[in-house]
This record gives sequence, C-alpha cells and structure tokens, in this order.
Amino acid sequence: MMNRDVADLPSGPLDVYRNKASFSWKDMVCFIDGEDVYLFKQHVFRTLENDPLFARQPGEDVPIEKKRELNFLRMKQLLRYNFVTKEEAMANPWKAMYLDDCLGMYDWALVAKLFLSLGMFGATVANSGSSRHKKFVENTEDMRIFGCFALTELSHGSNTRAMRTTAKYDPSTQEFVINSPDFEAAKFWVGNLGKTATHAVVYAQLYTPDQVCHGLHSFVVPLRDPKTLLALPGVLVGDMGKKLGQNGLDNGFAMFHNVRIPRENLLNKTGDLTPDGRYVTPFKDPKKRFGASLGALSGGRVYITRMALINLKLALTVAIRFSAARRQFGPTDTEEIPVLEYQLQQWRLIPYLAAAYALENFTKSILMNFVEFQIGQMLKDNSDTAGMGREIHAIGCSSKPLGSWTAQRGIQECREACGGHGYLAMNRLGDLRDDNDPNCTYEGDNNVLLQQTSSYLLSWLHAKQRDGVRIESPFHTVDFLEESQEILKSRFTALTVDDCVDSAVPLAAYKWLVCFLLEESQKKLEQERASGNDDFEARNNCQVYYCRSLAMAYIEHTCLQRFHELTTNQDTPAGLRPVLRKLCALYGLWSLSSHMATLYQGSYWSGRKPAELVQMAILTLCSQLKDDAVALVDVLAPTDFILNSPIGCADGQIYNHLWSTVMQGSKVLERPSWWKEFCSDKPVLGSLRPKL
Amino acid sequence: MMNRDVADLPSGPLDVYRNKASFSWKDMVCFIDGEDVYLFKQHVFRTLENDPLFARQPGEDVPIEKKRELNFLRMKQLLRYNFVTKEEAMANPWKAMYLDDCLGMYDWALVAKLFLSLGMFGATVANSGSSRHKKFVENTEDMRIFGCFALTELSHGSNTRAMRTTAKYDPSTQEFVINSPDFEAAKFWVGNLGKTATHAVVYAQLYTPDQVCHGLHSFVVPLRDPKTLLALPGVLVGDMGKKLGQNGLDNGFAMFHNVRIPRENLLNKTGDLTPDGRYVTPFKDPKKRFGASLGALSGGRVYITRMALINLKLALTVAIRFSAARRQFGPTDTEEIPVLEYQLQQWRLIPYLAAAYALENFTKSILMNFVEFQIGQMLKDNSDTAGMGREIHAIGCSSKPLGSWTAQRGIQECREACGGHGYLAMNRLGDLRDDNDPNCTYEGDNNVLLQQTSSYLLSWLHAKQRDGVRIESPFHTVDFLEESQEILKSRFTALTVDDCVDSAVPLAAYKWLVCFLLEESQKKLEQERASGNDDFEARNNCQVYYCRSLAMAYIEHTCLQRFHELTTNQDTPAGLRPVLRKLCALYGLWSLSSHMATLYQGSYWSGRKPAELVQMAILTLCSQLKDDAVALVDVLAPTDFILNSPIGCADGQIYNHLWSTVMQGSKVLERPSWWKEFCSDKPVLGSLRPKL
Repeated sequence: MMNRDVADLPSGPLDVYRNKASFSWKDMVCFIDGEDVYLFKQHVFRTLENDPLFARQPGEDVPIEKKRELNFLRMKQLLRYNFVTKEEAMANPWKAMYLDDCLGMYDWALVAKLFLSLGMFGATVANSGSSRHKKFVENTEDMRIFGCFALTELSHGSNTRAMRTTAKYDPSTQEFVINSPDFEAAKFWVGNLGKTATHAVVYAQLYTPDQVCHGLHSFVVPLRDPKTLLALPGVLVGDMGKKLGQNGLDNGFAMFHNVRIPRENLLNKTGDLTPDGRYVTPFKDPKKRFGASLGALSGGRVYITRMALINLKLALTVAIRFSAARRQFGPTDTEEIPVLEYQLQQWRLIPYLAAAYALENFTKSILMNFVEFQIGQMLKDNSDTAGMGREIHAIGCSSKPLGSWTAQRGIQECREACGGHGYLAMNRLGDLRDDNDPNCTYEGDNNVLLQQTSSYLLSWLHAKQRDGVRIESPFHTVDFLEESQEILKSRFTALTVDDCVDSAVPLAAYKWLVCFLLEESQKKLEQERASGNDDFEARNNCQVYYCRSLAMAYIEHTCLQRFHELTTNQDTPAGLRPVLRKLCALYGLWSLSSHMATLYQGSYWSGRKPAELVQMAILTLCSQLKDDAVALVDVLAPTDFILNSPIGCADGQIYNHLWSTVMQGSKVLERPSWWKEFCSDKPVLGSLRPKL
Repeated sequence: MMNRDVADLPSGPLDVYRNKASFSWKDMVCFIDGEDVYLFKQHVFRTLENDPLFARQPGEDVPIEKKRELNFLRMKQLLRYNFVTKEEAMANPWKAMYLDDCLGMYDWALVAKLFLSLGMFGATVANSGSSRHKKFVENTEDMRIFGCFALTELSHGSNTRAMRTTAKYDPSTQEFVINSPDFEAAKFWVGNLGKTATHAVVYAQLYTPDQVCHGLHSFVVPLRDPKTLLALPGVLVGDMGKKLGQNGLDNGFAMFHNVRIPRENLLNKTGDLTPDGRYVTPFKDPKKRFGASLGALSGGRVYITRMALINLKLALTVAIRFSAARRQFGPTDTEEIPVLEYQLQQWRLIPYLAAAYALENFTKSILMNFVEFQIGQMLKDNSDTAGMGREIHAIGCSSKPLGSWTAQRGIQECREACGGHGYLAMNRLGDLRDDNDPNCTYEGDNNVLLQQTSSYLLSWLHAKQRDGVRIESPFHTVDFLEESQEILKSRFTALTVDDCVDSAVPLAAYKWLVCFLLEESQKKLEQERASGNDDFEARNNCQVYYCRSLAMAYIEHTCLQRFHELTTNQDTPAGLRPVLRKLCALYGLWSLSSHMATLYQGSYWSGRKPAELVQMAILTLCSQLKDDAVALVDVLAPTDFILNSPIGCADGQIYNHLWSTVMQGSKVLERPSWWKEFCSDKPVLGSLRPKL
C-alpha cells in the first residue's frame, strides 16, 4: 500500500475526528481508486481549477442562456484537454469512467453534452449504421457537426413502440420523407437538440412505397446548417426551456414537415431498403429486430447508477463535514457539541455513507459485468452473451432505481440535516438533488424498469419448474435461487446485538427475502390469471408489494452480496477490513429494515427480538462509525474547487467560507435597483378594493 | 347544500373520469370550504389573474433580483387590494387564513414578505413592547418603515439561547449599544433583511452597566434609511443570495458595530431598564421570561402544516390530472390506457390524495385549537390556557413534521409520476418541492421539534404514574392514554379485506401503537439513566426508534382520529360520506403501513394475515378511489392561472398546453447568441494536452 502520493488535507476543526479515525484514509484511497487513478483524478481536478473558463462562484444566479453557453465552451475545452485518448480508453475502459466521474462531480450537464453527441449520436450511427455512415461519425469527432439522439416524442416516453414519426420512402428521388403527423408526435426531451445539434438520429416508422410499415428504424436527419446553426427548411426545432436541473444541457424538440433525406441516411444494420424500395433485413422476427435496434440503450442504466452514487458522495461530503464542525446545544449551557454526536444525526446520515461505500463497490462490479458482456459480443466466443445480456439488463433495470432513489433520499436527508444552511443554494445540495433527479426518470422510469427485473427472476423460476433448468447465470446474481427451498426454511438465528453486527446476518435474511418474494409474486400472478385477467392486467396487478418489492430486494441483495465478498476477501487490506465490515453490516441491516414487515409476515422473524436486535445493531454501528465518518468522506471527496460548497470544504471552516462566499455575492451590500419602489409610491391600504 | 355558485370546469379528456365520480365535487367544495369561502377564493384568484402585475409565464427563467422586485411590487399591490380588512379578520379569523391559502397557491414568497413585516415584526413589537412602541407598528402598517425579525445567527439556529449579539446599556446617553462580537454572531437567515427591511426586531443579550447579563431581549433597531434604503452607519446589512426556493423573499444578514439605539427601543413587556440602568421585570424566573419572550414564535408551526398541505394539493392536482390524461401502453399494441389505470400509479399517488384530505380537516382543526388558545389568553377566563399552550405546542411541533414531510415526499412522488414532463420547470413540481422544502427546517428542524412532542407525552405518563393524575387534555389528543393498559392488551381482529376497509381498523391500531411506543420510550429512557448517562445524553439516546416514532405516531393518530370523526359525523352530508370514509380508511392504513414492523414487534399483529390484509385493503381502496381521483383534485385545485402548470389544467389538454407553453418560451426557435462558438474556433483534439 503506497499512499505517499495522496496529499494531506488542511488542518482545522475536523482534525478531532480525523485523529479519531480507526483507519488510514490514504490507504483507503489507494485501495478504492489506486494511486494511478488518484493521480489522474487530481490532474483532472487541478486542470479545471487552473482554467478560468471553469471558474464559478458557489450559488451564483446564472441565466439559462449563459449556462448553456458556458457548458458549450467548457465542452470544447475538454476536447482540447482530451484527458483520455481513444487509445487509452480502449486499453483501459476504467479511465474513461473515472474521467466521467470527475467531470460529473463538476457538472453532469457537461458530461451529458459531450456524451450525447460523441457517444449517443456517434456510437449509435457507428453501431446501427454501416460504412456509408462513417463520415457522420468522423464529422462528429472533430465537431464539424453536432449530434443528438431523437427517440421520445411529446406524448410517448416509455412506450417507444408507439412512436408516430414516419419515414416514407419515395423511390422517384430515392429519398425518405420524414414527417411528424402532429405536435404530439414532435420529438421531445432530446438532449443537445435545443440549441446546438446539427444532426439527429431520428427514430421513425419506416414505410415502403407499398404502404407497409416495417416498424421503428433510425435515420440520420440534418437539422441545422453547421455553418450558421440556423434550422433547415421543414424542421421546426427549438428549446424546451428550463428544467429542474442540468440546465447546462439544451433539451429540445423537433417537428418534421416532410423533410427529405437521402435513402442512405437510414441506419441499415437491422434492415435496409433497395433503391426501388424493397425492404431487406437479416432478422426474421420483427420483435428481435426492434430489440437489437434499441440495444444501444442498455448500457446507460448501469452508468446512471454510478452517476447517482457520485451525487450522493458529494452530498455526504457536505453534510458530514458540516455536522462535524457545526455545534449546537450540549450537556451544559456553556458547552456545545458537534451535531454529529447526536444519535439522530448519525442515524440520518451514516447509513447513507455506508450505502455510498456499498454502491462504490457495486457500480464498479456491474460496470465490469457490462464490459465483460460487450467483450463477449465483440469476440463472439463461446461465452453466453445472450444470457449475459439478459442478466445485465435485469441488473441495470434495478440498479438504476436502487442508485437513483438512494441518492435522491440521501441528498434530501443531507439537505435537511444541514438545516437552513443546507437550503442556501451556494452549499450545492439543491443542485445535487436537482441534477440527480432525472436519474429516476430517463432511460426508463424506475418503477417501469423494475418490472423488467422481476420478469427476469420469474422467468428463471418458471424455467426451473417447467423444464428443470438449473438456476445459474453468467454473473451469478440468481444462483442462490437454486437453493430456494432450503433457504425458505431458514430462520433468523441471531441472539444478541453482537451477533447482528455482521453482514452475514442481513445477507442471509436477504436470501430468504428474495426467495419468499419470488414465490409470492409467482403465486399472485397465477391467482390473477386464474381469476380471468389477461396477461397485461395480471402483471399490472402484481406490481405493488410483490414484483416491485422482489426486484428491489434482488438488487439490494446483489449489492450487499458483493460488498460482503469484498469485506471478507483476504486481498482486502487488513487495516481496512474492520471499517469496511462495519459499513457493510450497517448497509445490509439498514436496507433490510425497510423489509421488516415482510420478514415477520413470512415468519422469518417472530417475536419482539429480531426487530429490536436489528435496530440496536444499526444504532451501534452508527455510533461506532461516527468517528470514522469524516475520514470516510475524505476518501470520497473531490477537491474543494470541484465540490464547490462553502460548508463542505476540507478544512471544516464552515463559517469562514460561508461568510466570505456571502460577501462575494453579486451586489450583496447594494440597495436594490428598484429602491424607489419602496421610498415613493407608497400603497394606500384598500385603494383598489371594490367599493360596495 | 347549495352548489349552484360553483362554476363548471371545462370539458375535455378528463370528462371520462369526472363522469365516473361517485360524488358531486361541487357538493364537496361547499362542504369543505362553504360557498362564501369558495366565492372569496375565486374573487382573489380572478383579481390576481386580471392584474398584469401578477402575470407570469410557466417555467420562465427570472433572475433573482427581478424576482425580488416583482415580489415587492406585488406585495404593495396586495395592500391596495386589502382583500381582508382588519375588522373582517377580527370578526372571522378564517378569512385571513383563506387569503393566505390563496396567495400561497400563487407564491409563498409573497405571503412571507407581507407577513414578516406586518405579522412578525409588527405583531412582535405590539405584543412584546408597550405603548411607547406604537409608532413602529403604525409606521409598518402604512409602509413608512419595513420590518423583519432577527433572531437566528450564522452559527446558531436551533439553540436560540446561545445567541451572542449584545445590547449593553450606556446610562450616560440612555442608549443601548448593539454589537455583533464577530461574523459568526451576525444575524442570518432573516427574511426581508436582504434588500428591504428598514427596521428589525433584534434579539440580543442585555447587559446592565454593572456587566450583568439579563439574557435574551428584543430591541427595535433601525437598519436602513427609509428615505433611501441605504444602510445606516455601523450596520453591515446585505443579501444572503440564492436559496433553493422562495427566492422572491430576500433573506439577509446583519452585523452591528456598536450601533446606538434609544433606551426606549427595548421591547419591555418582560423586562425594562430604568434610565439609570437598573433592570426591572415582572417575572421572577428568568426561564419563564425567556419562554414568554419567545412565545410569539409558537403560532407559526400550525400554519406551516397548512402551507405544506397546500403545496401537496397543487402537486396532486398536476399529477392526477396528468395521469388521467396521459396514456401509455395498453392490453393491445393499438390501445393505450391512462396511466392512472395502473395499480402502481394509483398506489404512488392516491394515498397522498387521501393524506391531503386528512390534512385539510386536520390543519383546520388545529388552527381552531390555536385560536381557542389565543382567545383563552386574551379573555384570561377560567380555561386552562397553560394546558392549552402546552398541548398546542406539542401538536405544532409534530404537525409541522407530519405536514412538511408528507408534502415533501408527496411532491417528489408527483414529480416522478409525471416522468420527464414532471422534470420540466414549467409544470411547477420543482418549484413546489423547493418552496415546500424550508417547511421542514424553519421554525425548528423537524427532528428537533419532535423531541418536544415526545417530552410532552412522556410528562403525562410520568404525572399519572407519580401523582395519579388523570390523563385528559384541553384538546383531547392524549385522553385515550388514560386507557393505556387496556389498549395495550388489544389485538388486531380483522379477518377479511372488507373488515379492513374501515378507518376504525387503523385507528384502533394507532391507539395501541402510541401506547406501546410511549411505554417503550419511557423504559428506554429509564434504562439509559440507569446506565449512568446524564439527562442530556439519556434523552439523545432514546430518539431513534423510540421518542421520534412516538411523536410521529401520536400526530398521525390525532390526524386520523379527527378525520375519522368527520367521516362518521351525521352532519357530514350523506352523499359525501362514502368517499370520505374511503379516503379516511386509506389514509389510516397507508400511514400505519410504515409502522408494520412495530405492530409485529409488540405482538399487536402476528402471522401472515394482518400485513396482507392491510396491503390488500390499501390496493382495494386505491382502485376504488381512482375513478374519484380527478373529482377529488377538482375540489382542491385553484384556477388554472394560479396553478400555472400546463399539464395540470382543468381541461386536461396536457399536450396542447405543454406545446403552446414551449412555443411561447423566450427565444425558443432562435439560434443561440453564441452560435459562432460552434461555427468557428473548432477545438483541436488534445491541443491542450500536456506533451510528454
């Protein structure tokens, strides 16, 4: 463990806690990130800090137009810095992830802007098109054109199959005519489309001259003249306006009035048209074709889980440093103690800190699964890529809800735990919450996605029962279901709080919980079907308390399982294992505590003891971890410049930074420009009241 | 029931649901508000709508300085409209509340700005001062001066006793010298102080010439020249900058550098100084004096509960109308159904609708209790005002957490339930969340306040056990505790879902729950003390899972109890009772479901059945209420102008309004002002990358 390259943090009010920490935060940095990554991250952080284009004032009131301009300029600058070259990214895919982590800590809108043109547009064209589309990809790379990905419409988000934009082929000119039948079919919510995109990948229903609809296909459609950024004829394109967050990104809409594009602009991997208008496809089943053409979407959810985690890390850094420095009340009238010393404050924050560590490990492990799946696809070797694809889909559809909701609730708790100061925009908790919020929605509404995961689990059970298939998946997240019958017979056995302070306890409970919910969900589904409901209705009626809980329990189990493995692994440094084990136990017990009623319901628990033990274990772990909490956020925190929150600075001088940031505010001491409105034109009480 | 004055709502996609409603929404309006109130509210709504000063565009990006100017101008205009005269407010205190409801639906910052000068400053001066302070009150009323209330300091919010601003008396000039020892003692977070206040009620430690500190007192301190709005010498006063919400209100800070004010500016109700500097007080116990001087603060929490409810009502109106009009997926590929038809969507939204109805009744009933308490104080009659004061304090300290958290979570659920469109600023869910958020914090952090309520409950139990006192309080919220021993023996007896669909079931469970948690909290407290902890530590260690849960269960019980009484009252119109009973049962069961583990833990529940019945009852009620949901929000909704949310309009034309609002946005179709930044100065990939 070489940690000499990890820089010391400035001394101040947080020293008391740092000195009490049970482990070396520098060793933890080296363990979690490794030295190379640490240095790379610091390099990115410092580069941004040293570039005036990236300067910002905490809490400043920036108009949306300005936000978009700044975001665009910063994005251009990132291309100049080119922190990770294509070759480096190929050699080490983690490096690209760490770069996005760093940039996301600064502003997710920046990552999104870059990604949507290069990644989403560029990669979709590259993956769904063919050699004839190469120029679009190249032109995107040097920013001659700027791309976006136009799938959702005003009246359809989740139900992508119901998209109504049409692409009708005209063999006389060998062109497609792209048309929006009405404004409800306008492409909507498309990132980069508001102000900057010159080209879009547009999803539209393909019609051949014989009026046959061949389903949703993607087309490259020019939108704006790259020389002027003015809209092209027939394209009504504009900005959707203000969102709750991520306003550096220009989301937009587009309506197409019979816009003609060359036949070649059809991205033809899954289906093509001959010049005379005959449809040819390598796929026989149109559903499979549709699945393949949407395949480009699957990767995002896994990374969104990590985006949410990063937001949570930042919020926790702010709230825990604040709680360690803020003193309020005390045992005597003269002595005040840090609010982190209060049981209630510990219980509000420290479980989220444990969740952040669990998710740190988990997001990396599922990104690794995803990379493995991609490699399998590329190599076309003997690995079970279809199975991998199904499993990573089930993971992503539930890890995104787990990550985004944990962050959503955690950031809100951090906001409230910082009291009024948490409500001050400069401390960034509002922006973190607002920027995190869409993680619950884009790439599929969380609740809708969870249905995919429960269906996956039910299909395993079904396959076992019907065909005697052994339950065993490429990433092993469902393997334990093979022992379902034995697991369902198990019961909670801990007798003391000491017994409970061990992640094996919640882990065993989770195994039982998933098996129980899976069995219950299947029963419920059968009941619904037996009572005469069609499949659509039967599935809908099984969501609440059954399938939805099942999917959440499954992903929480997977996350806990992998964290448990890490903390018990002999390769994990011995000096770090004790604190990691506490975090793991706390995460497991705290997550489990939202399922306590089910544990009682299914008789895994009975009597007063189990809930009491789990609750006492949670409080015990919170209290044990409170002296480690500052060091634990030091590991996760970026530099002060990136964190951009006066109450979250590494030196813990919360009031100094707060006060000086307030004093640096715009026109802070000036009287308002409209001061005469107070001094003259005094209102006469009731002068506008109707006289009776 | 005369409902002919209630205007029809426009026809559209919501008609289907409106026609299916089981009750007359107009009758419900008349029952909940009464016709006079309905007409008064409509009058206020229409007046604002007809006044261009109140015009606004959904989702527009207004700079903070402009928000403050507009808010100030609108506030002046309100004085001109004088919707409720002083005499009317005296004769009918509800009218003032309904006015604030109406204005709050428009913008809480407007209510706050008016209230802080007239109510908070004016009323505090009137109540804590004497005849010599009359001129301040009068000058506030005609806006010659503008007031604010300066209690909290940068480093102290909750712990008001630790305030460090000093007021030292100088008998040679008969002046107080107001001083902030350092910036950490700067007055901070004071509403109206940022840009507009000319005078403040400042809380400071009073020192007599003999260097004796007499504790916190309040003083009227001039801050800015009313002729120019420029700061007076020695006063460093300014704006704190952007908050997460309510940015129409200018919160500010002030530091005093030995500012001299006349002796007479001491608000002298609880203590005064003779010209030569002797301290005289009618109170013997300084703690009582302190209590009385902070008494002016107690009323707010009760109304904050209602503020939160109003935010929730608006969010529900948006989300439920949207869910009834938005179609996504369906049993066949061609037919799509409203998302409100999905079990999951019902379960996400309808319990909050039930909570809104429960809180509508509850907030009115506790405001009534508060008025009763005030009248008792004024009349100094035989009523138990001390007991009333203690009870209303316990209610307010828990009703504010109940209301603000229910609204916080409910608005977030509404945001997510509207998917991407909920993330668009124009639909207002973001503003509602942001404007509601401080309700969790100001007038006391929710978690800190709950300790007051649990202490109140524990003190009753203690009084009974020690002195054999009969548990009976003026507002009857604790009376049932007298039967604690019998209640603790009771068990859940429902056998079918039909049995459960009755608010008596959760009500009985809540009585057991409060008794159980009270007993457990007391035991835990005794254990903590027995193990050698001092009172401060013992109390802190009983919060999580005990005292905090106790306070929440108590207030949920009270809210449910009062709703249950309303729905079973023979005076409640028979045509409305069925739907109200369903709402009440749903609210009770749904609230109770967060305590299921405790019900099992204490053996009130055992086996699989109870949780299953409650869950099925919740889903049954959601499904029964989904056809009433649109009519139920019609009752709560303001006019479209006030609601200001394209997807929440009464006609349900969600896409028409959304699209036209987008098209009315500023520069929506224009290319960005910085278009050249795209068209020229293309970045060279890696040009700023350090060369090795």
